[in-house]
Amino acid sequence: MLSSAYASSSRKFSIDRAALGDMGDKHSARLLVDRIFTAVLEGVRTRRLAHGDKLPSLRVVAESAQVSRDTVARAYEKLVAHGHVYTRPGAGFFVRVDNQVANAQTQTAPAPLLTNWRQRLLDPRTLLHRGLGSGDLPAEWINVPQLAAALRAVSRSNINWAAGYGDAQGYLPLRQQLQRKLADIGVDVTPPQVLTTLGATDAINLIVMSYLRQPGMTVLVDDPGSFLLMERLLASGMHIVGVARDADGPDITALQNACEQHGPTFYFCQSLLHSPGYTGLSPQRAFQILRLAERFNFTIVEDDTYGDLAPAHRSPHATRLASLDQLQHVLYVGSFSKTLGAGMRAGFIAGNPQQIEWLLLYKLVSRASNGSLAERAIYRLLSEGGYRRHCEQLRTRLDQARPRLMAALEALGIVLPHRPDAGLYLWGKLPGDLNAMEVAERMLANGYLTAPGPVFSSGQAARSYMRFNVASSDDEALRALSNVLERSAPG
Amino acid sequence: MLSSAYASSSRKFSIDRAALGDMGDKHSARLLVDRIFTAVLEGVRTRRLAHGDKLPSLRVVAESAQVSRDTVARAYEKLVAHGHVYTRPGAGFFVRVDNQVANAQTQTAPAPLLTNWRQRLLDPRTLLHRGLGSGDLPAEWINVPQLAAALRAVSRSNINWAAGYGDAQGYLPLRQQLQRKLADIGVDVTPPQVLTTLGATDAINLIVMSYLRQPGMTVLVDDPGSFLLMERLLASGMHIVGVARDADGPDITALQNACEQHGPTFYFCQSLLHSPGYTGLSPQRAFQILRLAERFNFTIVEDDTYGDLAPAHRSPHATRLASLDQLQHVLYVGSFSKTLGAGMRAGFIAGNPQQIEWLLLYKLVSRASNGSLAERAIYRLLSEGGYRRHCEQLRTRLDQARPRLMAALEALGIVLPHRPDAGLYLWGKLPGDLNAMEVAERMLANGYLTAPGPVFSSGQAARSYMRFNVASSDDEALRALSNVLERSAPG
Repeated sequence: MLSSAYASSSRKFSIDRAALGDMGDKHSARLLVDRIFTAVLEGVRTRRLAHGDKLPSLRVVAESAQVSRDTVARAYEKLVAHGHVYTRPGAGFFVRVDNQVANAQTQTAPAPLLTNWRQRLLDPRTLLHRGLGSGDLPAEWINVPQLAAALRAVSRSNINWAAGYGDAQGYLPLRQQLQRKLADIGVDVTPPQVLTTLGATDAINLIVMSYLRQPGMTVLVDDPGSFLLMERLLASGMHIVGVARDADGPDITALQNACEQHGPTFYFCQSLLHSPGYTGLSPQRAFQILRLAERFNFTIVEDDTYGDLAPAHRSPHATRLASLDQLQHVLYVGSFSKTLGAGMRAGFIAGNPQQIEWLLLYKLVSRASNGSLAERAIYRLLSEGGYRRHCEQLRTRLDQARPRLMAALEALGIVLPHRPDAGLYLWGKLPGDLNAMEVAERMLANGYLTAPGPVFSSGQAARSYMRFNVASSDDEALRALSNVLERSAPG
Repeated sequence: MLSSAYASSSRKFSIDRAALGDMGDKHSARLLVDRIFTAVLEGVRTRRLAHGDKLPSLRVVAESAQVSRDTVARAYEKLVAHGHVYTRPGAGFFVRVDNQVANAQTQTAPAPLLTNWRQRLLDPRTLLHRGLGSGDLPAEWINVPQLAAALRAVSRSNINWAAGYGDAQGYLPLRQQLQRKLADIGVDVTPPQVLTTLGATDAINLIVMSYLRQPGMTVLVDDPGSFLLMERLLASGMHIVGVARDADGPDITALQNACEQHGPTFYFCQSLLHSPGYTGLSPQRAFQILRLAERFNFTIVEDDTYGDLAPAHRSPHATRLASLDQLQHVLYVGSFSKTLGAGMRAGFIAGNPQQIEWLLLYKLVSRASNGSLAERAIYRLLSEGGYRRHCEQLRTRLDQARPRLMAALEALGIVLPHRPDAGLYLWGKLPGDLNAMEVAERMLANGYLTAPGPVFSSGQAARSYMRFNVASSDDEALRALSNVLERSAPG
């Protein structure tokens, strides 16, 4: 019986060398394990493997895929750990397909969420060297005395706040501080116009949940732009249309064409230190965008995640849409993830009172409140001036690190089209039009995580680009990149 | 021009005494302000008021509604503060309708979220005496030295954790502790089968977002049951079917009928100390539910929010579905909101690895991670035994408070059908079949928030019931209830 089960499944499913894809020069065991893991899941997805099918033996896969038995064993163990495969003592490995879950997913899921690369960038469980491709600041830049002191102060005084949900809209003294912070950038609000969130990602999640409720609605995004935003929109079945950017901001003709063709309801964009391109927004473009928003009646979600890393003095390309429009067509999203660390999970939305009331209803039913712990600590930092000083320190450190990384990347033949004078990233074009995904795969085989252009854009233009983290790129990673570039064929 | 604007709007819209509804005996100014506020919004919703329409003057409303001018002024000011009304100096109050927002809401919103009562119960901004109707423990029960110490410990050591998102699935040492906690109730999992959330509400939100992706899907819920759950399901356009409960758990015939008629994909229920009824689940019923889940292929979401308030010894009605089923058809939801306070926003989901992997994708795209602060503090409490002792203390305090409240309620003629020996609530039937909503309105006019039965159920059976908080019901509130009951006519 076992042999017949084996025969029936082996007819349908095998793992040969080709199934593992191009491995580049390096055959890292970890990468091979991942590829075998993925090949089995792909077999389930395409229905070549059904529940109860026996997987090919370790020996058979080792031979057909030209890998060690140990590598196959590790992949199978990982499949068992993830529940995709079960073992029968002495009989081998068998596929588990939970029909209920599979059905629920098939019925309701849109295209697969999160490509491998995007998931790798987000999920620190990958245990890779994350510096070059990371979106975070180094821990020692965040682990400053004033933040620890603020956290201690919140837990030292009485913690009566822990008992209740707290203000569902956000801790009121914090919202009052955010009102002042917004006034600093020329946006006038009252505390009822501010709603706290767990960072910008959560803010966008709440906006999508509250307003973009029908699959198939058209949403405009920056291209290149935030992959997390794009995945969130895909998760709700949105039709995403990218708007190209240049050094002055979004391409107005492209924006207008998109409006005429698709009648979008929302446009998500970053004005300052836009990631990954790290360009800004000129006042003229900002004005044109707002006129289009008025004419075509769409809402702009201005994600100002990187705003506090911008110099305090106003440069010509440091225009925010919210400052011009005063939240008529703009929902403003702020975040502390790039200044106090992503682990604090703190951000906010500012909008007109009706919008905030609407968003609050969805916040209430989806989580009741954020809790007060981080919000109270951030309130202290904002009210006692520690936050402003901390941001100045971060800008100084970034300004010191940026020229070094620029020089190192240009020495590798990488072209930096914008040469920004602020912010956390550089956006560089690989020499010889190299395929950034291939370079990224080779870096991965060496244990380094990078952020290749196609993660941020479906367009061809980003194909040879990579985003580099100014704060976290060390010499070792750059040497690895140098080696990979030398041994890569022009694309 | 102004007078004609006034004339045109006054033809369509006025606020008379009838528009303010039945006020009971008490004419609290706060209640009147709320009613006028709501009447204007209702005028906008029903299109009797359009953008730019002038509202009737303070004098006119004061006369027609038989209230003071000051009350009308306060209502109008509140409308201005919420952005529904604007003023022109010397000209009066004018309606603001943000067409863009109004359109977006009309296009995409299902039935209104959150009735006033539900929102009042959730949102502490109402500033009412919250004891009787509250779902929280008193602050002094939560503000215990071990919790403050755990929070301090997390912020005293280095706070490198703040820099990164942290483990998107949840802080691993916490998940390992949760594994042990689940083993204590007979549910065997590995850490990859656990995903942390911001309390049970957030857990349910994530499950709805990940699995219930098509409006109109049928979902079964306990009736009476969690209003927050029902609102969350309504927000996604779900078709909700209630399953009645008795002292032994859900009515199996009703459950089977619902399965046959509607083919539900999910059934959300509470097994232990079910709110508001505070009944449990017998082993026999549990077995029958699981057989139906197998036969009709639906997933059970077992919300064990109140589980840690149940006595450690197993009583015959302290069965958990997850313990019997070992997460084949059950997604288990745990929470620390009723033991460490809702302000900590901490909970988790346990399921099979495929389900957790699926939920993790949606957690990644919707918020990246929860952050580590609260999770690290709770890890300490769990690993150092402080949590277990704290729960014992809470149970002791509840056991002391419960007989007192039982006696007080029964002295008022309130019938307690279940007389529970554990948990945070009592569920009582008002004397003389009084209408609980009317009693609640009168209590509100006295400044007291209560939790009337219709908040938890659309059925007639809950019409005369109220849920009372054992931990937070003080003598003053009970005296107010006594007065209201005395002066209420039998229903």
